[in-house]
Amino acid sequence: MDEHALRSLIDTIAREVGAASGDVSLEQARSLSEQVQKKAAEMGVNAVVAISNRAARPVLVECMDNSYIASYDIAVQKAFTSVSLKMSTSELKPLAQPGGSLYGIQFTNNGQIVIFGGGEPLCNASGEIIGGLGVSGGTEEQDTALAAYGKQLFEKGRK
Amino acid sequence: MDEHALRSLIDTIAREVGAASGDVSLEQARSLSEQVQKKAAEMGVNAVVAISNRAARPVLVECMDNSYIASYDIAVQKAFTSVSLKMSTSELKPLAQPGGSLYGIQFTNNGQIVIFGGGEPLCNASGEIIGGLGVSGGTEEQDTALAAYGKQLFEKGRK
Amino acid sequence: MDEHALRSLIDTIAREVGAASGDVSLEQARSLSEQVQKKAAEMGVNAVVAISNRAARPVLVECMDNSYIASYDIAVQKAFTSVSLKMSTSELKPLAQPGGSLYGIQFTNNGQIVIFGGGEPLCNASGEIIGGLGVSGGTEEQDTALAAYGKQLFEKGRK
Amino acid sequence: MDEHALRSLIDTIAREVGAASGDVSLEQARSLSEQVQKKAAEMGVNAVVAISNRAARPVLVECMDNSYIASYDIAVQKAFTSVSLKMSTSELKPLAQPGGSLYGIQFTNNGQIVIFGGGEPLCNASGEIIGGLGVSGGTEEQDTALAAYGKQLFEKGRK
Repeated sequence: MDEHALRSLIDTIAREVGAASGDVSLEQARSLSEQVQKKAAEMGVNAVVAISNRAARPVLVECMDNSYIASYDIAVQKAFTSVSLKMSTSELKPLAQPGGSLYGIQFTNNGQIVIFGGGEPLCNASGEIIGGLGVSGGTEEQDTALAAYGKQLFEKGRK
Repeated sequence: MDEHALRSLIDTIAREVGAASGDVSLEQARSLSEQVQKKAAEMGVNAVVAISNRAARPVLVECMDNSYIASYDIAVQKAFTSVSLKMSTSELKPLAQPGGSLYGIQFTNNGQIVIFGGGEPLCNASGEIIGGLGVSGGTEEQDTALAAYGKQLFEKGRK
Repeated sequence: MDEHALRSLIDTIAREVGAASGDVSLEQARSLSEQVQKKAAEMGVNAVVAISNRAARPVLVECMDNSYIASYDIAVQKAFTSVSLKMSTSELKPLAQPGGSLYGIQFTNNGQIVIFGGGEPLCNASGEIIGGLGVSGGTEEQDTALAAYGKQLFEKGRK
Repeated sequence: MDEHALRSLIDTIAREVGAASGDVSLEQARSLSEQVQKKAAEMGVNAVVAISNRAARPVLVECMDNSYIASYDIAVQKAFTSVSLKMSTSELKPLAQPGGSLYGIQFTNNGQIVIFGGGEPLCNASGEIIGGLGVSGGTEEQDTALAAYGKQLFEKGRK
């Protein structure tokens, strides 16, 4: 194996390992939050944006001026929900309705599980969940769209 | 510009600013609570009346003699809900039913979100929310009517 | 027994029974709160005043403009503490210090026990506790003085 | 009064009113947080920085990479404490020791009161409290120094 091939191998290993052990950094969170807020402003929404790491612990929470007071808890818990259950809150929504397979999950975690749209897991290049994004402040449709937008930006940015 | 015109201008500015930055004072809360209770008594309801400021912090809570013990928390949280979500609890009600866009919001804020009638935001002359009113003690219809009555009185009184 | 003596006997019984079954009414609470606030204003204190009934349930809470946000919970819990332990919070204070006979009581009731001055039980003419008064907003000395003042007014007023 | 004098008067009024009614904006919070984190990095501290508004509601929370998990709650509650009691948490510290006038206040507000250094109220040009800063992540001395540094920057920036 020549030097160039060795270097390339090391790079590949580093990238894979980085992907496996990656976590959302504050710098990434800040940049993502800023972009989501820019979009929210365009839509006329005063959003709270919360971003958590792979351990479902918050990394950043930002409340746009004049956002709902209730949105702080909701955004934080949307990020928690997405990571802790490894799905978006809009995927969880039908499962948690009366009669659904997970109906009742909204009562089991001290009020930390949100069952309506606006929470998305954030994945690395290997498709592993390394963080969560929660958005609250608009209608459910708006929050869902903003979280999906943020997820897309984040995942494109990592490639 | 003569002195009189200047004075008039200053008054206008002060009024506008007051409207924009106002908050519910204890004096206003007391007077509003008294009027709502008078109406409740006419209806044969022993109500708890709670009034919060623009930050959704309580300013006043009054429990009419023989009101429900449970109504204390309910009235306080109705006032909180109206301010923190910027809508009446009766507007929130359909959204929070199973299948509704916000079903589950009743679990996300540590039991502070009430999803049945009796909570109303209180607005200033500019239409900005500067406080919240929560009434609990009668049927849902009665509580809803009493909160709407109080909102109307408060907003008429501010003009 | 003549009619006059009978009337007097009935009055005595009524008074005793009234004393035994008495409870703080909202009207009494309002009047007491107003007087305590008047005194607080004289002392330059923006107080929160909370009054509970003989069951240690709140009857009234009033937050003077610009009072501490933290004082709401503290005043409510001072009233609770006074009734639920049948002593003023300043009497409880030494007992709840490390090494004191009740050290640890501040952890046993979900944060409802306050162990510094500003809470007083309110008694009827027979010396029975029928409510509690909690004041928060000044220094401990000021809150203690205001609660003692309110207790005195209330008990004088009932005779 | 000529046009220029009038304009100057209006500016003065606007400034005074702004000072009186101001609140911490997200933009201010972001800039303050960034500067505090820069200082923390120089000191080798991975800090959590929390900033709340004049109602003691969070505006922003940022967790530097590798900060303590426990620091999230501590920083948020330091900001809450500073605003809700109108003093720094290091000023509160001696009062809340066993035997101190406010010993026990750490148990009365649902775990929201922090009694060691690292929380500072943020004032406007009129000296009014319009927000709070909480820092957690280093030793108490470091957190106290970082919060004091942030307070100074914020208040200098507003003049």
